[in-house]
Amino acid sequence: MDHLVTQVEENVNWLSSIGADPTGGISRLLYDENWLIAQKGLEEKFSEIGLKTSFDEVGNLFGRIEGSKYPTETIMSGSHVDTVVNGGSLDGQFGIIAAYLAVKYLLETHGQPLRSLEVISMAEEEGSRFPYAFWGSKNIWGLAKKEEVIDAADAEGVAFVDAMHKSGFDFRTTDEIRKDIKAFVEIHIEQGNVLETIGKPIGIVNNIVGQKRYTIKLDGEANHAGTTPMSYRKDAIYGYSKMVSQAIDKANKAGDPLVLTFGHVEVVPNTVNVVPGQVTFTMDCRHTDADALQAFTKEIEADMKATAAEHGLAIDIDLWMDEQPVPMSEEIVQALVAACDEKELDYNLMHSGAGHDSQIFAQFVPTAMLFVPSIAGISHNPAEATELPDLVEGLKALIASLYKLAYED
Amino acid sequence: MDHLVTQVEENVNWLSSIGADPTGGISRLLYDENWLIAQKGLEEKFSEIGLKTSFDEVGNLFGRIEGSKYPTETIMSGSHVDTVVNGGSLDGQFGIIAAYLAVKYLLETHGQPLRSLEVISMAEEEGSRFPYAFWGSKNIWGLAKKEEVIDAADAEGVAFVDAMHKSGFDFRTTDEIRKDIKAFVEIHIEQGNVLETIGKPIGIVNNIVGQKRYTIKLDGEANHAGTTPMSYRKDAIYGYSKMVSQAIDKANKAGDPLVLTFGHVEVVPNTVNVVPGQVTFTMDCRHTDADALQAFTKEIEADMKATAAEHGLAIDIDLWMDEQPVPMSEEIVQALVAACDEKELDYNLMHSGAGHDSQIFAQFVPTAMLFVPSIAGISHNPAEATELPDLVEGLKALIASLYKLAYED
Repeated sequence: MDHLVTQVEENVNWLSSIGADPTGGISRLLYDENWLIAQKGLEEKFSEIGLKTSFDEVGNLFGRIEGSKYPTETIMSGSHVDTVVNGGSLDGQFGIIAAYLAVKYLLETHGQPLRSLEVISMAEEEGSRFPYAFWGSKNIWGLAKKEEVIDAADAEGVAFVDAMHKSGFDFRTTDEIRKDIKAFVEIHIEQGNVLETIGKPIGIVNNIVGQKRYTIKLDGEANHAGTTPMSYRKDAIYGYSKMVSQAIDKANKAGDPLVLTFGHVEVVPNTVNVVPGQVTFTMDCRHTDADALQAFTKEIEADMKATAAEHGLAIDIDLWMDEQPVPMSEEIVQALVAACDEKELDYNLMHSGAGHDSQIFAQFVPTAMLFVPSIAGISHNPAEATELPDLVEGLKALIASLYKLAYED
Repeated sequence: MDHLVTQVEENVNWLSSIGADPTGGISRLLYDENWLIAQKGLEEKFSEIGLKTSFDEVGNLFGRIEGSKYPTETIMSGSHVDTVVNGGSLDGQFGIIAAYLAVKYLLETHGQPLRSLEVISMAEEEGSRFPYAFWGSKNIWGLAKKEEVIDAADAEGVAFVDAMHKSGFDFRTTDEIRKDIKAFVEIHIEQGNVLETIGKPIGIVNNIVGQKRYTIKLDGEANHAGTTPMSYRKDAIYGYSKMVSQAIDKANKAGDPLVLTFGHVEVVPNTVNVVPGQVTFTMDCRHTDADALQAFTKEIEADMKATAAEHGLAIDIDLWMDEQPVPMSEEIVQALVAACDEKELDYNLMHSGAGHDSQIFAQFVPTAMLFVPSIAGISHNPAEATELPDLVEGLKALIASLYKLAYED
């Protein structure tokens, strides 16, 4: 299987060149020129290995080989073709390349599968050009609504509809969804540092976290830093620092898989010699268990209200994102585990802390994911990278998994 | 003394009209057109009540009446004529008006004093036009150096030297300082909320705080908020929140007159779904006692280093301002206390949390200050205000004080 190394390298390099920007990153956004070149290029590659290709109305690309025994049962693999602005060379597109190379290898090695095999290159997942994420997978499953994007425009003012039409695509005309897909397996970079830290090349994902995002605003009193005694203050940054340190202490105590992040903060007036009168900050909390996520965030919300009252601060808590955890299919996870065990591939059973197309698929069809390590956990950045041998191990795991799902009776 | 109410109101309104901006604030900056109009207008007022007026080389204005018995002993009062950009109607200029009205009242009521009396309108204190504060008082005491401002320019690129020359002033040609000043008394708004909170119209200032200002930089690791387990993080905002909450807890415990402020913070990358990799923040600490200030800040510095180490963060602590506390003259403070007691004026003995010209004078001559309340502690803002009756009580305290110092044998 040594030629897999060359094939992974060549194909990643080829796809990365489409939309490459001068900083070494890739900007290939939904319906832009390079996006279309990439989809057309992939269509050609899929055809070359004997797959029957097709686009759906919105631009998702499919490459299919019929199963010899169970043609109406489809095993699908792939990911999204779009990148973030100035993104890396693996997020999304590695999942397409790996699926394509896995199917290529399986056809070359084992011939026609018992079940139909399909490679998918999804139109969009990142929400980087227009304010809408999962456009590809949500269309496949009838979740995307025309009215959600009809008024959307990109940063340059180009209307979503105009960009779509210009690239030759249009809204779906039916809400019909496919009944033939028996398994969806997506391979993706981890975008975290767990695999690297524990030294494993493969992750088998059994859950995608739910997440809640908040914006919290504290109102105190801006005062002179020299002339206002401590006991007369309503210091918003004091309240903030109590809330953040106490909440993260609790998150550490709760332990995996809970994560809690206070990523953004804005202080008014933000001046060395003025007691901060106002602090606005975000909280991002994730967990694989919906009840645990709810219980933890409720506790933190109550803590924050108590701390605000104690410090004489007004508090406004706005929950603006509330996504449920999505468990992967136990059946497919076990198939992936068995495939890796049989091939003696070293894996870690884990959850995903980031969102993926698989969380849309998992609501409709048996789904699981494979991860490969991200060097230093870096992603959405030109420095995004995975050691080539790890990419190949991931590909081998995908080959073994698709073999088990599509070739075994 | 009822006519004092009218006189305070009229004179504050008159001086506030010179440099008034459309927002209700005042912008009268060193050597600008309105600054010169104000100094010339004050010179005329000083002359009208029989004071001999003079400017020194840099533009400090003096109005003097010789003492009948001790003409070589001068009792001086006044403050600075410049404002901050978009400042209020009392900071600085009330101290000039009050000194002028006090001397006017004393001459009208008691005739020539035993000691010489001098009203001063200082050129500059705020550092609002050029990056140099206390230009007026530092020149009087030989502390201002030509080389410190020779390359300075304002925000519009006007050179300090050109602005000075245009208004008719120049550098001092000698370092000689006056030996005749036996007392300096400055009346100023509090710029804090202590007097308002305790309901007293007058503060007698016995100390001006020392202050240390720091910029502290924490370096951790920016990571994905979803895919990085809590135990793998080097979260700079977590360390920051621990440092701030612990330090303010200690400051509260230490109690008055210590104050501690974390006014400014900057987070990188400051994004909802990224663990903060870098936090840069300021710390401002003030105390009336140099040893206590030093001991407290040393302890906080050690705490911050320990917290940084505990959280895997690199820390850089930069102390960029280190001003010593300036005690007021015990003798003059007692004279002010006696004057207020005799006139049954209600005062609070207190320190100043902000810097004033008096801290320069106090290094050379017996000095003390009087405060009047600031409504809601607001200053350096068009909303800066003091109830008129409180301004008058302050003026009465200044009259009683100058009487005691200049008229009693």
